[in-house]
Amino acid sequence: MGGLTQEAACGVDDSVLLARAYLSRVAEPASVPVWAFVQEVGPVAAVEAIRAGQVTPHVLRATEARRGQIDPHADLEAADRHGIRLVVPESSDWPHFALAALERTGAERAARFAAGETKANESGEPIPPLALWVNGAGDLASVGVRSVGIVGARAATAYGEHVTAELAYGLARRRVVVVSGGAFGIDAAAHRGALAAGGQTVIVSAGGVDRPYPPGNATLFARAQESGLVVAESPPGSAPQRHRFLSRNRLIAALATGTVVVEAAARSGAANTAGHCFVQQRPVMAVPGPVTSPMSAGCHALLRREREPAMLVTSVDDVLAVVGGIGEAAGESSGAQSASDVRAELDLLDPVARRVFDGLSARRAAHPDEIAQRSGLTALEVIRALPVLDLTGLLEASDAGYRIAARLRPPRRTRTP
Amino acid sequence: MGGLTQEAACGVDDSVLLARAYLSRVAEPASVPVWAFVQEVGPVAAVEAIRAGQVTPHVLRATEARRGQIDPHADLEAADRHGIRLVVPESSDWPHFALAALERTGAERAARFAAGETKANESGEPIPPLALWVNGAGDLASVGVRSVGIVGARAATAYGEHVTAELAYGLARRRVVVVSGGAFGIDAAAHRGALAAGGQTVIVSAGGVDRPYPPGNATLFARAQESGLVVAESPPGSAPQRHRFLSRNRLIAALATGTVVVEAAARSGAANTAGHCFVQQRPVMAVPGPVTSPMSAGCHALLRREREPAMLVTSVDDVLAVVGGIGEAAGESSGAQSASDVRAELDLLDPVARRVFDGLSARRAAHPDEIAQRSGLTALEVIRALPVLDLTGLLEASDAGYRIAARLRPPRRTRTP
Repeated sequence: MGGLTQEAACGVDDSVLLARAYLSRVAEPASVPVWAFVQEVGPVAAVEAIRAGQVTPHVLRATEARRGQIDPHADLEAADRHGIRLVVPESSDWPHFALAALERTGAERAARFAAGETKANESGEPIPPLALWVNGAGDLASVGVRSVGIVGARAATAYGEHVTAELAYGLARRRVVVVSGGAFGIDAAAHRGALAAGGQTVIVSAGGVDRPYPPGNATLFARAQESGLVVAESPPGSAPQRHRFLSRNRLIAALATGTVVVEAAARSGAANTAGHCFVQQRPVMAVPGPVTSPMSAGCHALLRREREPAMLVTSVDDVLAVVGGIGEAAGESSGAQSASDVRAELDLLDPVARRVFDGLSARRAAHPDEIAQRSGLTALEVIRALPVLDLTGLLEASDAGYRIAARLRPPRRTRTP
Repeated sequence: MGGLTQEAACGVDDSVLLARAYLSRVAEPASVPVWAFVQEVGPVAAVEAIRAGQVTPHVLRATEARRGQIDPHADLEAADRHGIRLVVPESSDWPHFALAALERTGAERAARFAAGETKANESGEPIPPLALWVNGAGDLASVGVRSVGIVGARAATAYGEHVTAELAYGLARRRVVVVSGGAFGIDAAAHRGALAAGGQTVIVSAGGVDRPYPPGNATLFARAQESGLVVAESPPGSAPQRHRFLSRNRLIAALATGTVVVEAAARSGAANTAGHCFVQQRPVMAVPGPVTSPMSAGCHALLRREREPAMLVTSVDDVLAVVGGIGEAAGESSGAQSASDVRAELDLLDPVARRVFDGLSARRAAHPDEIAQRSGLTALEVIRALPVLDLTGLLEASDAGYRIAARLRPPRRTRTP
């Protein structure tokens, strides 16, 4: 099965890759019982149990329709022929940084599920994907470190498409990755703007990465793949069903450092994506528009929220100020810095980022909540500052959380008795 | 001098009226030393001292240019011939309710001035006017109880004028008094909207009430007078000089329960009016617009303020929610209610208004700051709730502040020894 161990999946056992490929097809995205089961027993044992039907009724219900009809070997070989790769949590290009929030909320959700709470989350389950199918030249692991989601209405106005394209162009020029869906309207304008600037753009697809939807945007999908990525949770060939759009939205929220809603009706997919951002404690920004335009009503509603209102943004600079504009200059610096260089660079950071750094531990990785507590900041402030610290090589991200980068840690000392 | 005691100045001594008429002409509006001096010695003694030049250097400097050339008797007679009346703090139609915030900030400013701090306030001095010249059928005392300032750019766009007219029309239909300046653009659209609904509108003029400015709006001034008011601090005949616009803006802020900025450039007169609202702790609302329109940049800047951001409003209902929508129904009820009716009406109020009522004293009038402290609310929350309590006849407003209405106060008991 050497053909399966693609470059992208380096270091991952074929058995794990096959198991994750199977899992990505056997259940619909964002199934809490299935995800919790995989977390508990690992992907290989989970697949064995699911194939045998030796699982809890919840897992059985989520998997019984397809559990006997899946050939992950054939799936992976077919994907490989089309340049599609499977990225799994066990591989080095899994976007741990971007998915840290979902890993935290997923663990909470799984615990509540284990305690008997089976009521589904209103805006979709905030759990990580079991695996991601990816097509394109971009590096998935770096997405989410410095990326902006730009989402909004399919039936956008000329105003909305204009503002979207300008924002995406300006952000891509500043080396920010743009993340969106693949729809007409705001989504398409965002990708076009980023591509026009020669930037990276990520389409998170509700169906398989080989099934551009709407078909009219097939060229856009192809162009996004050239420099960026098309990403999907459902395996190749999957149809873009309605519920897959809703679960897809949590991945846009996760893969973007912050998300901008440019135009949206009062109830809309963009509002759903914003809801996922709030759950994941990711910044939500909204572009205002004419109060006479129904397509701006959703944005104004987000800006008027009593708790955690969206941040009003009118320009690229406003967006950079939210997602960490300082990272831009820092991102250009080389990774090979001495500790004194690092100290000097810390001084260049804004005070919040410095406080976050001071809240990091050298020994033990911590999640944003814990760092927030230690540094006396809100979790949102911590999450906003993390990308800058990551780009400057000051922290180390893993699925256990964040800690001070290895090269900066003091050597372990033997305790004097 | 019986001709001077107009109906509107009922109960005011001619000597006071003449003194205030003199004072309104001798100094430019919003002079802290002159206002403080009048507060200290009263208007009649102040005028005698100013005429004689027996005043502090600060007061002398503010008054010496005109102190010998004023004939207040002739001024009042000429005003009377043109239907213009002088409203003074000693008269029953002085808008104590509207000016309560300025009286508080004025006292603070005077105290700081007395302590040697002569640096002028950046956005103009937040002190009450010495007197107001008024022309029109409206009742000045009721302005500010349920009124909305609508301000914005002269060079408004079609969008801005449309939204302004719609807002003003809708508010006037709900019996809210509209307050603005007399300029082209947003100001004029606000008055036209209110007049189209058959409502009351108040033009606060930077020059004399008999000097419509710009002259092209003379018809609008005439129409505003028919049902509403034209109000000015400077006496009839005064030219609308630049600094008078800036001091005028504090009166728009004062006479309106809350103020909406519809369209404004980044630096603008509307931003100055908003600044006065913040100083007076009056709600500032802003209408968003296209981020591509420089005429909405000032609104977006107000909405993005770090501290005390403006509230985003998109409709008449949004504005009513800020300035006290409950007052609408309450305003229709008769004033002759029994105490139990009042209790029932209290139950209809929102919880904040009830808490403000509970923070009122029966014996001693208090300013919003003090009421805020007693009721555990912010001063802004208190100020927003006061109009409702006033309209429902639950409180009594005076220049000493607010207390429970006389008819609700328990009878004074003799203390048992």
